[in-house]
Amino acid sequence: MTITITAFSKSPDQGMGLARDTRVRWALEEAGLPYEVRLVSFRAMKQRAHLGMQPFGQIPTYQEGDLVLFETGAIILHIAEHHAGLLPNDAHARARAITWMFAAVNTVEPPILELVTARIFEGDKPWSKERLPLVHDRIRNRLRQLSTRLGDADWLDGSFSAGDLMMVHVLLRLRLSGLLDEFPNLAAYVARGEARPAYQRAFADQWAINKPAAKAR
Amino acid sequence: MTITITAFSKSPDQGMGLARDTRVRWALEEAGLPYEVRLVSFRAMKQRAHLGMQPFGQIPTYQEGDLVLFETGAIILHIAEHHAGLLPNDAHARARAITWMFAAVNTVEPPILELVTARIFEGDKPWSKERLPLVHDRIRNRLRQLSTRLGDADWLDGSFSAGDLMMVHVLLRLRLSGLLDEFPNLAAYVARGEARPAYQRAFADQWAINKPAAKAR
Repeated sequence: MTITITAFSKSPDQGMGLARDTRVRWALEEAGLPYEVRLVSFRAMKQRAHLGMQPFGQIPTYQEGDLVLFETGAIILHIAEHHAGLLPNDAHARARAITWMFAAVNTVEPPILELVTARIFEGDKPWSKERLPLVHDRIRNRLRQLSTRLGDADWLDGSFSAGDLMMVHVLLRLRLSGLLDEFPNLAAYVARGEARPAYQRAFADQWAINKPAAKAR
Repeated sequence: MTITITAFSKSPDQGMGLARDTRVRWALEEAGLPYEVRLVSFRAMKQRAHLGMQPFGQIPTYQEGDLVLFETGAIILHIAEHHAGLLPNDAHARARAITWMFAAVNTVEPPILELVTARIFEGDKPWSKERLPLVHDRIRNRLRQLSTRLGDADWLDGSFSAGDLMMVHVLLRLRLSGLLDEFPNLAAYVARGEARPAYQRAFADQWAINKPAAKAR
């Protein structure tokens, strides 16, 4: 059955791989699954046809026959449940890997999303400059806790899992802020994720679509 | 095997049921499972023994023999996978219910957490009053999309599921803000969740611990 995901026809990050289709591409590559991509414009994302698949007007979506899913966590869990390579076989280790998936999106990502919001939607506000250090400190607090737990391990709980995939991609959003470099073991953890061949393929595929067009002379 | 969860020894919400142990209590009640509760103080939550179970120093945790989990999403999914009452049997409907679990914690909850942060940590800042309407509008945007999707249905996708449980509890945080009442179908949806006997039992159990002490004369 063909798997089709949606992605931005023009990602706002200009190919840095931060759009959430990259998470799903990465998971599909780890599982060795072929897939097709349907590109969606900002305008089309807010129209009825897309909202029928994704009620919040976002990408990615996932289609496989008559199954339609959204939310990267749910999509990746679905892939992981049906294919090897993303969750351990041992039942307890599997439950713990899923714990890290949720920790990535519900504990570590929210303060990082606050930073995105502060920059994009409040960057021109009079409080922007004074408020930013507070936002940074809330992120640092989470990074410190995560760094302590990771210690000198390669991955969060034994072998690489969908929990690491989600966490690495959530942390990647911090690269430009410099916050990640304050925690060398987390920076190394993210680099280990990026070095995986499956991530490299996922990145290259989104880059081919999103790289900035060559400047006209 | 005994299930033990942790909860605040004194919840900051004074028994409104907004602390996240209520989500797990509710799921355990829906599944008809007995459980024990170990109360943890704010101080103990930040100490080594608790951090070994919950690296971010929060509640709840979930213990069942030698399985230790954190993150309400992962705990509830674990319960739902092993007991009837929280996920449909049909594989596609099950995947869609899990999609709503992730939508609750990764799409709807983040802007609501921003409101909590704005009030608790930035309530005394000079920008607080001027900034609040922006935070409210970002929440309204999500509520509008969710309200459109729900329409006049009772639950988000067929029968009540763990997806509704997570979404209702995430939305409950908005009650005092008045934002929920701007979307009557969402207010009714939350009320339907609260009316479930399992929620009532979960609420009563946390209330018994957290209700404000009677004033001394």
